[in-house]
Amino acid sequence: MSLIVQKFGGTSVGSIERIEAVADLVVKTKQQGHQIVVVLSAMSGETNRLISLAKQIDPRPSSRELDVLVTTGEQVSVALLAMAIIKRGHSAISLLADQALITTNNLFGKARIQHIDSSRLNHELEHGRIVILAGFQGRDIEGNITTLGRGGTDTTAVEVAGAIQADECQIYTDVNGVYTTDPRIEPNAKRMETVTFEEMLELASLGAKVLQIRSVEAAGRYNIPLRVLSTFAPDQGTLITYEEPKMTDKVVSGIAHTKDEALLSIVGVPNIPTNLAKILQLFAEYAIEVDMIAQINQKDAKIDYAFTVHRNDYEQGLELLGLVQLEIGASSVVGNCNVAKISAVGVGMKSHAGVAGTLFQALADENIAALLISTSEIKISVLIEEKYLELGVRALHSAFFVEK
Amino acid sequence: MSLIVQKFGGTSVGSIERIEAVADLVVKTKQQGHQIVVVLSAMSGETNRLISLAKQIDPRPSSRELDVLVTTGEQVSVALLAMAIIKRGHSAISLLADQALITTNNLFGKARIQHIDSSRLNHELEHGRIVILAGFQGRDIEGNITTLGRGGTDTTAVEVAGAIQADECQIYTDVNGVYTTDPRIEPNAKRMETVTFEEMLELASLGAKVLQIRSVEAAGRYNIPLRVLSTFAPDQGTLITYEEPKMTDKVVSGIAHTKDEALLSIVGVPNIPTNLAKILQLFAEYAIEVDMIAQINQKDAKIDYAFTVHRNDYEQGLELLGLVQLEIGASSVVGNCNVAKISAVGVGMKSHAGVAGTLFQALADENIAALLISTSEIKISVLIEEKYLELGVRALHSAFFVEK
Repeated sequence: MSLIVQKFGGTSVGSIERIEAVADLVVKTKQQGHQIVVVLSAMSGETNRLISLAKQIDPRPSSRELDVLVTTGEQVSVALLAMAIIKRGHSAISLLADQALITTNNLFGKARIQHIDSSRLNHELEHGRIVILAGFQGRDIEGNITTLGRGGTDTTAVEVAGAIQADECQIYTDVNGVYTTDPRIEPNAKRMETVTFEEMLELASLGAKVLQIRSVEAAGRYNIPLRVLSTFAPDQGTLITYEEPKMTDKVVSGIAHTKDEALLSIVGVPNIPTNLAKILQLFAEYAIEVDMIAQINQKDAKIDYAFTVHRNDYEQGLELLGLVQLEIGASSVVGNCNVAKISAVGVGMKSHAGVAGTLFQALADENIAALLISTSEIKISVLIEEKYLELGVRALHSAFFVEK
Repeated sequence: MSLIVQKFGGTSVGSIERIEAVADLVVKTKQQGHQIVVVLSAMSGETNRLISLAKQIDPRPSSRELDVLVTTGEQVSVALLAMAIIKRGHSAISLLADQALITTNNLFGKARIQHIDSSRLNHELEHGRIVILAGFQGRDIEGNITTLGRGGTDTTAVEVAGAIQADECQIYTDVNGVYTTDPRIEPNAKRMETVTFEEMLELASLGAKVLQIRSVEAAGRYNIPLRVLSTFAPDQGTLITYEEPKMTDKVVSGIAHTKDEALLSIVGVPNIPTNLAKILQLFAEYAIEVDMIAQINQKDAKIDYAFTVHRNDYEQGLELLGLVQLEIGASSVVGNCNVAKISAVGVGMKSHAGVAGTLFQALADENIAALLISTSEIKISVLIEEKYLELGVRALHSAFFVEK
């Protein structure tokens, strides 16, 4: 008997038919002898419907009340799934955040879980009940309703798995695992059997949208094996653990990409150490997150800096650099918002030379220029013109995954 | 400065526009210097939508989970109204049953409020906040979500008014008060300025659908003045208090009617004292509520009994009487499910003779036969053929309310 947390997203509970299918799936797991905590999102579309009601009243509604409003979405799902499981003759009980003793801080709309008292969850499990828990929601110490922000239901699932020391946390979604790259771009993309937390963190932050970073981090912190699998065709999915890949495994485990990038450059900056700090502080002041940073020293002691930012911050970033240019006497400011980032990720990279060589050769073979490069122990990222994104992804996938 | 509870039903918060109108109305009351607790129903149609989702899963869904499901309706309303009031620059906070410390028993779907700890409500009011409270819901001592059944939001409003010792409990609805009779039947029906709790209880139980009996009872118990008024054209409405009407007031305050009646008779019952008890116990066993009871002694020491029951219980009632007939050797069983009840209600009746005379004369003038009669200190009820209902209501209204 294992203790399993099963999380189902909005698409998985998007209609009565799908809720019935989830009930069947949960009951099947129960019949295999496991203890189960199910964590649910709102039915797909419901959260947006509620937010649009709020926006009709106030384009910037009270964040406390918005959380009161949107948490009804999960409350509806858990009640319906509990009914469906009870109808199948199994014992089930829905729990909301206050009933499951999930305490968060009071940052409405983006709260963090501070504590889960597992006594109620354990009590229900010990009595043989399937627990159906509302994801995405919490209560602060004053009893206010809070929500965890984007990907909050994944976070609830992983944090709860940690609190009850589950044997596995299963994230059911509309894809059957984590792929070596985006299958919509590269039809030959393969499902990974396993991937490490480290790799998954890089893949998630680089745009593989299967899992939210926070939940991968949390699973890694609690050392709870995380499995991504499909609600609609459940099989082994992809298992995310601390296990290192075997020696025979690929050095690169996946190719990630992200489109919402913009490139900002300031050219001919006088070589004074405080200048870069000044620019980055200004960005921070305006809450513009900088991802990649590169510098090129010119021969006349001037420096060019290049940054990537989220595309939404492009216009403001350009403006701010314009102000800096005047203040510090730089030559010019240029930008490009039609850029994208592709990355090769793999823990095997640590011990294998030549990954970078293979990568740049593959891009060069397709005449794709690298605009900016950044590397870490387990990944290489390259900024390229957005129009080459699909071509670049296919080129790298083919270089690392297709048998020659 | 008064402390006022304002309750708005589903139609009053049935759309964003109406929620905005309620916000205006609440803010206006606040600006008059009052402290306010608002109690809300779900947006009209929402509770039915949720129940129909549940029924798609299970025609008889888990009652605990059904309460988890349907309470989301009120949660949505309170969040939206709080947003609308906050947007108008006033301080407001939504509270759910657990936050407002409303404890009920654990009869899901028809729970009774056992205790309201007013400390949180008082705390918010003392800080100048308008409290927006979800009606219809509670928590049992184990923290399970419960609902109060039909008219539950009125009950919440009145019980909360009692707990915080409000100066007045205002029930906003889609009519502007309690009328001397149903204005759809008698266009000359007049709005009452005041009515006593006793009268209102009789009127409510006799089919004047403005207020639920339980909330009138509770308001009377706490001696909280109750006011019924229209959300859409608020004026003085009708005030329900313990005050006796002035001597100049009418002896009859209102004419009520109810259609869902059925008449059952058992004829020629041997005159043995246990026979009536036997019949009534059998009805009770099958949960058939008996309203009016009449008996006619025949000259040959046999007795005829007549009963009224809810029309839904008509067929079963006939069947049960058929069994009794065989057992006790009665002559026959007859029934009529096309009957209706009209009643004249008024505390003035206690001290005025002649009310019954006026009433039966008015019916006789229209050739309406009384099938069964029952009286109490403050009401006279008459069962008639249903086809004469409207005519009878108009005849009685004219007899008691139109100046001759």
